[in-house]
Amino acid sequence: VVAVTANPGPVAPSRGALRPVGLHQVQLTGGFWGQRQAVNGTATIEHCREWLDRLGWTGNFRDPNAALRRRGREFSDSEVYKLTEAACWETARPGGHPHGELLAEFTALAAGAQAADGYLHTGYGRPGQPARYSDLNFGHELYCVGHLLQASVAAARTGAAPGLLDVARRAADHACTQFAHSGFCGHPEIEPGLVELYRVTGEERYLAQAAAFIERRGHRSLPEHEFGWRYFQDETPLRTADVFGGHAVRALYLANGAVDLAVETGDEDLLAAVIRQFDRTLARRTYITGGVGSRHLDESFGDDFALPPDRAYSETCAGVATIMLAHRLLLATGDTRYGDVVDRVLHNVIAAAVADDGRSFFYAHTLHQRTPAEVPPAEHEQLRFGGGQRAPWFEVSCCLTNVSRLLASLGTYLATEDDNGVQIHQYAPTRIEAAGMSLEVATAYPDAGDVTVTVLAAPADERTLTLRVPQWAGGGTHVERRVFTPGEQVRLDLAMRPRWTFPDPRVDAVRGCAAVEVGPIVMCAESIDQEDGVRLDELQVDTAVAPEANAVKGRSIRPVDEPWPYRNDRTTAEGPEPIVVPLVAYHRWARRGPSTMRVWLPTTPS
Amino acid sequence: VVAVTANPGPVAPSRGALRPVGLHQVQLTGGFWGQRQAVNGTATIEHCREWLDRLGWTGNFRDPNAALRRRGREFSDSEVYKLTEAACWETARPGGHPHGELLAEFTALAAGAQAADGYLHTGYGRPGQPARYSDLNFGHELYCVGHLLQASVAAARTGAAPGLLDVARRAADHACTQFAHSGFCGHPEIEPGLVELYRVTGEERYLAQAAAFIERRGHRSLPEHEFGWRYFQDETPLRTADVFGGHAVRALYLANGAVDLAVETGDEDLLAAVIRQFDRTLARRTYITGGVGSRHLDESFGDDFALPPDRAYSETCAGVATIMLAHRLLLATGDTRYGDVVDRVLHNVIAAAVADDGRSFFYAHTLHQRTPAEVPPAEHEQLRFGGGQRAPWFEVSCCLTNVSRLLASLGTYLATEDDNGVQIHQYAPTRIEAAGMSLEVATAYPDAGDVTVTVLAAPADERTLTLRVPQWAGGGTHVERRVFTPGEQVRLDLAMRPRWTFPDPRVDAVRGCAAVEVGPIVMCAESIDQEDGVRLDELQVDTAVAPEANAVKGRSIRPVDEPWPYRNDRTTAEGPEPIVVPLVAYHRWARRGPSTMRVWLPTTPS
Repeated sequence: VVAVTANPGPVAPSRGALRPVGLHQVQLTGGFWGQRQAVNGTATIEHCREWLDRLGWTGNFRDPNAALRRRGREFSDSEVYKLTEAACWETARPGGHPHGELLAEFTALAAGAQAADGYLHTGYGRPGQPARYSDLNFGHELYCVGHLLQASVAAARTGAAPGLLDVARRAADHACTQFAHSGFCGHPEIEPGLVELYRVTGEERYLAQAAAFIERRGHRSLPEHEFGWRYFQDETPLRTADVFGGHAVRALYLANGAVDLAVETGDEDLLAAVIRQFDRTLARRTYITGGVGSRHLDESFGDDFALPPDRAYSETCAGVATIMLAHRLLLATGDTRYGDVVDRVLHNVIAAAVADDGRSFFYAHTLHQRTPAEVPPAEHEQLRFGGGQRAPWFEVSCCLTNVSRLLASLGTYLATEDDNGVQIHQYAPTRIEAAGMSLEVATAYPDAGDVTVTVLAAPADERTLTLRVPQWAGGGTHVERRVFTPGEQVRLDLAMRPRWTFPDPRVDAVRGCAAVEVGPIVMCAESIDQEDGVRLDELQVDTAVAPEANAVKGRSIRPVDEPWPYRNDRTTAEGPEPIVVPLVAYHRWARRGPSTMRVWLPTTPS
Repeated sequence: VVAVTANPGPVAPSRGALRPVGLHQVQLTGGFWGQRQAVNGTATIEHCREWLDRLGWTGNFRDPNAALRRRGREFSDSEVYKLTEAACWETARPGGHPHGELLAEFTALAAGAQAADGYLHTGYGRPGQPARYSDLNFGHELYCVGHLLQASVAAARTGAAPGLLDVARRAADHACTQFAHSGFCGHPEIEPGLVELYRVTGEERYLAQAAAFIERRGHRSLPEHEFGWRYFQDETPLRTADVFGGHAVRALYLANGAVDLAVETGDEDLLAAVIRQFDRTLARRTYITGGVGSRHLDESFGDDFALPPDRAYSETCAGVATIMLAHRLLLATGDTRYGDVVDRVLHNVIAAAVADDGRSFFYAHTLHQRTPAEVPPAEHEQLRFGGGQRAPWFEVSCCLTNVSRLLASLGTYLATEDDNGVQIHQYAPTRIEAAGMSLEVATAYPDAGDVTVTVLAAPADERTLTLRVPQWAGGGTHVERRVFTPGEQVRLDLAMRPRWTFPDPRVDAVRGCAAVEVGPIVMCAESIDQEDGVRLDELQVDTAVAPEANAVKGRSIRPVDEPWPYRNDRTTAEGPEPIVVPLVAYHRWARRGPSTMRVWLPTTPS
């Protein structure tokens, strides 16, 4: 029996530059993220549970022998596990909304569907179903187990779902036996799950199996597929690759597992390999929002600098996985720029993903909506990804439960501690208990840049309080070291001057364009805010004029419609009229009905 | 029994502004297209036959009850039919390479696999197979029949494949009975097949069934799918749509059938609807090459002006279908601008699609290859579409047989006739017999712009000789009307000055870029021609200097690699060095090994 952790959180490395704080140490007390976390706990979790029941994805567990009636895709089991994880964190966090009934029921579902040998997936191996492990590329069997393991870690550390850890151990043991000598899942996820299960249980076998899965990959041993081995990260070993490639979520989950493994085994080469790939991915394959994945076809990273705004995929799950990875690297290295990454993805991907009521969602995050969504999604299953409108559910609905488990555990991503003191990486109204200090953070971030840390309690000896200074405010850290006394305050004032941002000239898709950022927030122009007759595809902005927080200067151009859109002279637009182009935070778009939108604004010729 | 036509060709409308010429009337005697037509006849047809046999796609017909052993995708039968059509034209054309054995064998295959009630598809309806018409969205059953009908038309008109017309009629009769009251195929193709079969047989039932299929479509009656009804052209009736949308080949095959139907029934509204949609598609949804389809995910037209060069799909089949459609509209209306479309697509899509030896092919036509193809495709099935390298075959191999049937019948697309005389639309070394005239065309087109038409024989009364003047040479026609005498010549000298071409400002993906065209040829820069150290993604060209035929002036820029590719100041590239950027015809790219390539060249800031 594993004892409930005093300090539960999703990732607990045994070494590293910084130590994570647990759910009980950082409490969101309101503000931008506190509000979202509350909505997640009171609305999103129940919303997801209703859909899982309605579509029969929980029913698959109840009726495991009814092969012909099985509902959902190969990975639908994982939604049950991810929602279990979310409910554990939500139930356990201070001020959280309890979900005990859901947790008891879902734990029983998993236990009931598990085979005697530990195998657990509702879609394979029973009469009328495909054989176990008959489709390693797309079967998602170990992927689902990986999410089960992560849920069981949350269950074990919080005590919120007794019994789930036993189910997970049996499933992990089965996987270790089955894949003792060869094979791995087309979709990574079990790797970070196994390492974390090792951290919870101390069972070395799980760590060794994670290592085996990671090292076996990259030698083109999966069956050939039209998307290529890169799609599955099976083209090049992770240890030697230069950049993340293929299916973005697969690549990022694998990298998460690799960091966990490298930290536990002291494998500096492996850690360096992930850092190298993440660095190059940030430099060449990441949208201004922090989103990744530029191809709809195979949900993959595109080539370097191939970042089309109108076909940005930037899946919500890839945003979640990026935050998980950046957080792990922050813990391993202490490098504050990983905090910048978390900040950017939180405020421009995660914040955009969920509707205000917590009941509809973006799966993909376009940066340029050319035509308004035709109709709001009806109250039935929503099949399409890129419609410019948040939807209540998707046939592939991985993102909803993923963002839910992130939001429920968000406190653990905001700060860290070490032997010297506390590091605050993300700014939100919070109570922090770490390194013997009790702190209260007051801020209107990201709407304003003021941050006030009030010391509520502190030990009699020196402590270091480290505050991340975002790259856009100069970068680095603000550090104070002394004996802190209750009542004293440390203030940070991050100047939130709106700024023009220009792309590297190799980003072909947005050549001749500029964007506006305000603090961590990427802005966009949304059609609903524009003056009558101003079309977002027929304007140019003037970057010689400094942007204001909510508007820039520009002109409306009037392209001439020709029978053929290629001419032998440069067109001079007819009658350019000076206009003001109102802007809105990107994460706020599509909340007021169908609209067109663009982040990157064509500029007047210099 | 239908008599063999003296004048066979793929499309024979009973009315229209211009009349088509048949295979026996226009003979390619050499040059750019004569060479390609010869390679098609002597290499490509046999190459395709070998692959059809090797992969078992012909074997599916021989062994129709072996459901579990069936090979290939739902549409593999259609490759057998399209190759049959190609072989008919090739066998019948003057100077063609005979394929009698193939035609006898393939005719027997089709006849042998046909059910007693006329149904013909190797993948449905037998024990162990899905039920007939159980998947209208993707089953491709009527699609395959459509290609059978077109092949049978070629067989009937050329006499090259006796017996095939009977098979086709039984299949068409079955389809008419089965779909008398409702339903249609997710992939249009039977519609133009039915109208042409009506033209061959006079059977009104086929025309009525084509009309029914076209009118039923567009009311969202196919099963819902994540790609949306637009993918299947089932979102809006063709009669009221404004622009082609959804899957490009589906949209274009449907439009072909609609023109055929409109012409036979005198339905001017329907014809106008197609023209309206084609016009808008050319103005907003067509690449500079004439290629269409800008999304890999669903092989679809993208939104207006969404034309990314690096993710251009521009499927070869869509090019073939565009030529078929433009030719039909040319015949219906006499409008010479449709000849411009054929010219552009032939020289920049079709010419690019086939390797010099006629044994490897592009399926998709990117306009920007960012990374060199990794390895030349091996001599086994090639699964990938966009690798920057022509491949011998594809899992979805529609394009090979499609381009083969086009090339074998290419003569019929080059000229037309009417009561007044002859219209020459495409320039190639040819012998033309039309409107009582015998003409010889000598030209080095598209490598040079000289065209000399020598009158070999002419009647004693007046004739009009009309030569299309391409849009880039001023547009319109060169017309001579008189009593022509043998030996006299009409010359056209189309000035082939290289020219800069600029995109409409709404084509976001190539903002700030220019391309070079020479006559009908779109040029590109290919890495293999560049000086050492010049990278195609790190150059700017100077459009103030007129382009030469094979090179432009520019500079090599050196972007600075930063950890984050978005900056708050416009980057000035370090050390710009003046360079010459060699160019090559786009259709010649990737013939000298793996390379990078771009059509649209970033320009120096003006």
